Amino acid sequence: MSENSLSRRRAIALAGAGVAGVAGAAAVGSAVVREAAGHDRSPSASSGAVEFTGAHQAGIVTPAQDRLHFVAFDVITKDRDQLAGLLEEWTAAAARMTAGHDAGAIGAVAGVPEAPPDDTGEAIGLPPSGLTLTIGFGPSLFRDATGKDRFGLAARRPAALAPLPLFTGDALESSLSDGDICIQACANDPQVAVHAIRNLARIGMGVVSVRWSQLGFGRTSSTTEGQATPRNLFGFKDGTANLKAEETALLRDHLWVQPGDGPDWMTGGSYMVTRKIRMSIETWDRSSLAEQEQIIGRRKGTGAPLTGQKEFDEIDLTAVGPDGEQVIPSTSHVRLAHPDTNAGARILRRGYNFVDGSDGLGRLNAGLFFIAYQRDPRTGFIPVQRSLSQRDDMNEYVRHVSSALFACPPGVRGNGDHWGTGLFGA
Amino acid sequence: MSENSLSRRRAIALAGAGVAGVAGAAAVGSAVVREAAGHDRSPSASSGAVEFTGAHQAGIVTPAQDRLHFVAFDVITKDRDQLAGLLEEWTAAAARMTAGHDAGAIGAVAGVPEAPPDDTGEAIGLPPSGLTLTIGFGPSLFRDATGKDRFGLAARRPAALAPLPLFTGDALESSLSDGDICIQACANDPQVAVHAIRNLARIGMGVVSVRWSQLGFGRTSSTTEGQATPRNLFGFKDGTANLKAEETALLRDHLWVQPGDGPDWMTGGSYMVTRKIRMSIETWDRSSLAEQEQIIGRRKGTGAPLTGQKEFDEIDLTAVGPDGEQVIPSTSHVRLAHPDTNAGARILRRGYNFVDGSDGLGRLNAGLFFIAYQRDPRTGFIPVQRSLSQRDDMNEYVRHVSSALFACPPGVRGNGDHWGTGLFGA
Repeated sequence: MSENSLSRRRAIALAGAGVAGVAGAAAVGSAVVREAAGHDRSPSASSGAVEFTGAHQAGIVTPAQDRLHFVAFDVITKDRDQLAGLLEEWTAAAARMTAGHDAGAIGAVAGVPEAPPDDTGEAIGLPPSGLTLTIGFGPSLFRDATGKDRFGLAARRPAALAPLPLFTGDALESSLSDGDICIQACANDPQVAVHAIRNLARIGMGVVSVRWSQLGFGRTSSTTEGQATPRNLFGFKDGTANLKAEETALLRDHLWVQPGDGPDWMTGGSYMVTRKIRMSIETWDRSSLAEQEQIIGRRKGTGAPLTGQKEFDEIDLTAVGPDGEQVIPSTSHVRLAHPDTNAGARILRRGYNFVDGSDGLGRLNAGLFFIAYQRDPRTGFIPVQRSLSQRDDMNEYVRHVSSALFACPPGVRGNGDHWGTGLFGA
Repeated sequence: MSENSLSRRRAIALAGAGVAGVAGAAAVGSAVVREAAGHDRSPSASSGAVEFTGAHQAGIVTPAQDRLHFVAFDVITKDRDQLAGLLEEWTAAAARMTAGHDAGAIGAVAGVPEAPPDDTGEAIGLPPSGLTLTIGFGPSLFRDATGKDRFGLAARRPAALAPLPLFTGDALESSLSDGDICIQACANDPQVAVHAIRNLARIGMGVVSVRWSQLGFGRTSSTTEGQATPRNLFGFKDGTANLKAEETALLRDHLWVQPGDGPDWMTGGSYMVTRKIRMSIETWDRSSLAEQEQIIGRRKGTGAPLTGQKEFDEIDLTAVGPDGEQVIPSTSHVRLAHPDTNAGARILRRGYNFVDGSDGLGRLNAGLFFIAYQRDPRTGFIPVQRSLSQRDDMNEYVRHVSSALFACPPGVRGNGDHWGTGLFGA
């Protein structure tokens, strides 16, 4: 990468940063905005833009888009300023792309005719498609495995950002787990999500390296009351009892980091847990409908709890059948994941189904890429997963192969603010 | 799998087979049709149903849907009747699913309350989404690697269905290549495409085994004149000069197998080549715009040939620039793939972009899942690829990791007809 192209990128980054990003971006040199090409851009709810700035990051309570590209990076520089500079540059590109613009100029920039394009081009003509880009920082960014304070950030690590414990049955592949920085791209067009991650990786060349990445489709959790509940690859509705964007008091208590919870830079942020959960769908498909419904604790067709008639009927964990047995079995998924079983723990799930080809053994490599946000994983995901990992009948059909935890800072608020402002700030 | 569930499936298959499939399916026992659930089903071009029956299979000249799930199966039975029975059963399920119904009953069927569901459920409530299912038969179905005539079909193998030659630079992984039977599922919702392949695999349990499978997004080739040309992951428009569904005479000459071309059972069919082409996108992204355009032979922004102003301007292969050099370089992709360079050879491309996570070396595992249909690969793909593999400047940035060839029979026409009728017929 030449000096010229580096400094040019920085210039674009500064021009497009912060709240001024969208307007600023349009003014940048010879930048081609995606709207310029001739594709169908009939406005619709799914093709519009989601506001990039705000008190919280977009992509958490934003109504779940249909497609995901998730990436975890290793930071490969040792230079703190270079890392901070990248976060600033990324922020400008993210503001541009979520507004439906390119990451940078596609044509040659004046004076540097032989430079590589500052956008890779595959999203030209595509609408914003509801793109959101959500960043998180992993425990290893603060201290590496040897305990070394890599970037002078060790004192800023929140206590909540401790590596997750190993759970019963975990079959984690380290090359698919953890990471220094993650970016979650959600959009209603996979090409838009892929374009965003690919361009952020391109901009980060020499500073970060892709550790792992995951595509997902068919969101599995509704996150607003208006959204119909989608289905996971077990064929069941997933997310009926999820936290909803409208439940302000619950979000305050369970989702957003509050003042005094930890370091100030995380106030208004949230902690993200990801788990890649491989499903044995061929075995599942050979189990009877009755068995499937006993394992989940809900009906497959309607999504109603076994104690109710309709999807959103309250689950009655105390109900006993004519045979004297609990109607919602003691080892069923809905009972073990229920807040009443976990000291009131609630998390915001935002998972996606995946199929990664086949596994070489005649089976589809398929399952759920689970994503959950919470105020504190120590009172959120960890106790719930401890309960599930020990007793859930579903464990016969799932295997957790990847795991990660990230601290997602609050939203980018105003001019000059960027993804690293809080982390590296005074 | 119990006797009961097997015979029940066969009963449903027969009830739903052929032209009567759609109407017949709705009448089957307790089958839950997907329309029954409460999802948003606002009618639109992308959510409707594509007719399953016809002179040709759907999914070839059908306007390319946005998402792909492709699967190649090994046949693991030695029983010819079992294989023929599966093709019949698959046809009925395919007719149901492409019409927006489930593959079979989800609830318990009368008399078999403990049977597994005959549909896996994850597409309940989703519209047909333009689903097409296209079947093909590989050379190995006719004779295995040792030359054995596995199912008494050796005499029916078309001469055009000979294994592809190895091309310069091929880096094929055998576990990702070839296969006895393939099914291409295209839809505008990936969950619908995945659901279809998963249920066909489920129905085929014990008869076939998944050899490899591939998800794709962002079709790279427009196949009708109305469709805007999408972009591949090099960021260029891909498919500008593709065969179009409206070009009836060209389709007759280059796409559809004609009477006398080979065995009668293939008349009206087509030969499908698949190539998984890994792109070195990180290297590509560091090359200059000028270099990228010289390699492709077109402008990145507009898609216009280097000799023209607009995307659909004719390429002038004879043009010479002020420097005395050819304007469309001799080693550019558009020149080497052009019919004039290949004795008039034309193929119908129908590729999809893919991102399969990352490669463990800090790079995205991304590229193009190339699909091409033609009347005869010996005058279609093979000469074009021979030319490209030896001289194309693009080879520095691509690697072919998988390859397959399949004979796709004509469409299912009427009552009693199924995917195996021609192959196994008199």
